[in-house]
Amino acid sequence: MILILFSLVDGPDRFNSLKTRIEGISQLMLTQDMERDGYVERTVYPQAPVKVEYELTDMGQGLAKAVWGLVSWADEHHETIRAARQTYDEENGY
Amino acid sequence: MILILFSLVDGPDRFNSLKTRIEGISQLMLTQDMERDGYVERTVYPQAPVKVEYELTDMGQGLAKAVWGLVSWADEHHETIRAARQTYDEENGY
Repeated sequence: MILILFSLVDGPDRFNSLKTRIEGISQLMLTQDMERDGYVERTVYPQAPVKVEYELTDMGQGLAKAVWGLVSWADEHHETIRAARQTYDEENGY
Repeated sequence: MILILFSLVDGPDRFNSLKTRIEGISQLMLTQDMERDGYVERTVYPQAPVKVEYELTDMGQGLAKAVWGLVSWADEHHETIRAARQTYDEENGY
């Protein structure tokens, strides 16, 4: 779900395009999970062939931002955490 | 771990005090998990009886803040999500 959030943060996209970037994504994830929870809006364009787009709602954008806060924190600190573990292990004879 | 983070965000505390507020907490969580990862500092006061305090490091404070961003987002939006699910279910005959 997090990858879908981040993939849609810059604007709407279509399932087939998302599928090329997110391994294992299913339309059910988009509809019965994210649309149902109010994170994603599904727009069907009545044309031939029919065009369906998925877009983050304001709430979806808000969740992406809150999740990004944690993901970017982890990314910034994983090296410090690795070093802390090494020091702890050395000091405690592990 | 999240409860420990939030319990220490306002300052150092002792294990027995934390134990009264966090069910299932163990000293190993504090030392081999959080101290080892660099989120918590353990201070032993050489007095009788010995006093041991646990305190969030700057990195621990930073993680608490990043996690709080997500927790508070979820708290603010759980009602909206519940309503979105209800609407989706009604519209889709679930």
